[in-house]
Amino acid sequence: MPTLKHRDILLYSDTARSADALYFGRVDVPDAFVALSAGGKKIAIVSALEFGRVKKASDFDLVLPLEGFVEKARRAWPGKKAGAARVIVLAAKELKVRLLTVPEDFPAGLYKELSDLGLKVSIADGLLFPEREIKTPAEALALKEGNRCSAAGIAAAERVLRESKIKGRRLFYRGSVLTSERLKVAIETACIEQGAVSSNTIVAGGDQGCDPHNRGSGPIYANEMVIVDVFPRVSATGFHGDMTRTFLRGRASDAQKRIWAAVREAQLAALSTIRAGVPGNEVHRRVSETLVSHGFETRHTASGSVGFFHGTGHGLGLEVHEPPRMNAHSEAPLKKGAVVTVEPGLYYPGVGACRIEDVVQVTSAKPRMLSSYPYHWELK
Amino acid sequence: MPTLKHRDILLYSDTARSADALYFGRVDVPDAFVALSAGGKKIAIVSALEFGRVKKASDFDLVLPLEGFVEKARRAWPGKKAGAARVIVLAAKELKVRLLTVPEDFPAGLYKELSDLGLKVSIADGLLFPEREIKTPAEALALKEGNRCSAAGIAAAERVLRESKIKGRRLFYRGSVLTSERLKVAIETACIEQGAVSSNTIVAGGDQGCDPHNRGSGPIYANEMVIVDVFPRVSATGFHGDMTRTFLRGRASDAQKRIWAAVREAQLAALSTIRAGVPGNEVHRRVSETLVSHGFETRHTASGSVGFFHGTGHGLGLEVHEPPRMNAHSEAPLKKGAVVTVEPGLYYPGVGACRIEDVVQVTSAKPRMLSSYPYHWELK
Repeated sequence: MPTLKHRDILLYSDTARSADALYFGRVDVPDAFVALSAGGKKIAIVSALEFGRVKKASDFDLVLPLEGFVEKARRAWPGKKAGAARVIVLAAKELKVRLLTVPEDFPAGLYKELSDLGLKVSIADGLLFPEREIKTPAEALALKEGNRCSAAGIAAAERVLRESKIKGRRLFYRGSVLTSERLKVAIETACIEQGAVSSNTIVAGGDQGCDPHNRGSGPIYANEMVIVDVFPRVSATGFHGDMTRTFLRGRASDAQKRIWAAVREAQLAALSTIRAGVPGNEVHRRVSETLVSHGFETRHTASGSVGFFHGTGHGLGLEVHEPPRMNAHSEAPLKKGAVVTVEPGLYYPGVGACRIEDVVQVTSAKPRMLSSYPYHWELK
Repeated sequence: MPTLKHRDILLYSDTARSADALYFGRVDVPDAFVALSAGGKKIAIVSALEFGRVKKASDFDLVLPLEGFVEKARRAWPGKKAGAARVIVLAAKELKVRLLTVPEDFPAGLYKELSDLGLKVSIADGLLFPEREIKTPAEALALKEGNRCSAAGIAAAERVLRESKIKGRRLFYRGSVLTSERLKVAIETACIEQGAVSSNTIVAGGDQGCDPHNRGSGPIYANEMVIVDVFPRVSATGFHGDMTRTFLRGRASDAQKRIWAAVREAQLAALSTIRAGVPGNEVHRRVSETLVSHGFETRHTASGSVGFFHGTGHGLGLEVHEPPRMNAHSEAPLKKGAVVTVEPGLYYPGVGACRIEDVVQVTSAKPRMLSSYPYHWELK
């Protein structure tokens, strides 16, 4: 029988900041709290404000009231701050835990305090829960649901674009100028109606779209490519969607059509390459080669980059960006069950910007699509 | 001339997780990035994906491309990971910075790597930017705007409650059962239309409201108190609103009326106590005493707590919960310019739960209200 490598872990965060804490306890906690394991049991130490809810609706085997530990810490260290560090030291002693492993993003201040108080704390090398990368069927379903919400948002944007009237270069929706802001209201409202919250939604038209993290603002113009990137968080599960479509209301130029076709073909090339065991950088290379074969070069200039200058995709889960990555440096083979975005793009100021993004789960054959939305884009 | 105490700081986070990073650079960056100061200048090291936007629209005096440092790190440490730690070590050397101060929530993994690489890093004792607690006039205005968004959400909830039909104990809105979920859609949609994103909105009726962090789910009943707590983030500024009203559709019992009146009187007692120099625990004591004088005792039992068992308020800013606190342990005097919530509550399963929350700025006289919404609550 092999020796099981046993490891007790320690987390201190709220679940909005730490996906690990949400993954570990499967319950939302809005303020930083102590979560740890001892002998395979999951333990949370929470205040009266959280106690009932966490006890009822979480994966924790044991929920302990914070107030009791604070009292004990006051008695054990009179005149000293009865903060998280002393609470953790007392809890570790009661639970007979000698070494705790923390994630890389554990707060440095608390890490140092614990060390100063004599508790042995080791920082995880890499991910605290490497298993987070492999999505269970239930998690894949939650991600599909996230993308259903993304699609609802994208559909809302498409509807508004189609309903807008073209007057010269301008677009008018229900009598007033169509802006990125109005499209975002339509998208985010649609997500909310589906039970998801979309923050930082990107609706970037024309040259704004050439800056991939510009969220877009002001008027949307006819005959310009508009990148619509929607990555909501499903409130019930904490899992995300992440989809992008590029639209154009009016008539596309030949140059714009070439850009769109190259990006879509690059995405298809990626989809036909992704499979368990293939390194992420191979997928990325296929994408880059496809774009170059269409005559689209990438250049870095003093005023910024043009062409294709971001990764092909990233893992999606409780975080919008999580492992694995698929970029020029991703040497690790993709694992079966990992969920990644596939999002090539091209960015040429003065001509247009285009990104098309879907989400797939890696299998040992062709990847399983977890997102679905049509690929028409020129809304005449 | 006094010697200026000079301190160079280092941050490594995205701006959703670190309000310090947002405060420092005044620009949203969705992935972790290096921000530091050297000789009073603010410096960001970002990837091509962020470069243009951060250079254009931020408080950074100098924006350096990440890719250059990664290249240098590869050459300086062949075969080693050219990650954030080595980038920071190279940047510190180029910028001639010898000691960097990091916030308590700086990632422990990176802190240890930097120390191992020989960079001197000191963890801030307390807040990295204590000045964040004192809100400038522009920041107070941004918080007022946040509360305007909260009020729009609360108004939407009130509208739906008023329009709902009472049939027995049930409430029906536009033909179907009224639920917490439907009220939250109305609230969050209203916030989005005002330019703010409301996450984790609380609409908790009846006994659900007795668990102050239960967000509420399922049907809302007539003649039951419903806590509506809305704390959106204004997308343009990153500042929050945080307001709570308690409604009841139908007829309130005498017991419910007594609870509501006591909570409101406790809030007024707090408002008449808050002033620069008064310790937070004095405000909290006034609130507790007012509630007790109305006959409302606080008890902690094995199945949970009843009465008033959370703090009176917390600081509000780029984070929903930030210093200062006003609870039984808050000995520090309130500072002029600080912005706090004032939110007494009473929670009695079987009878009702009530919380009323507004936001004020501390002055040397009576506090300045930064939130505004009527106090009617019984919607007959």
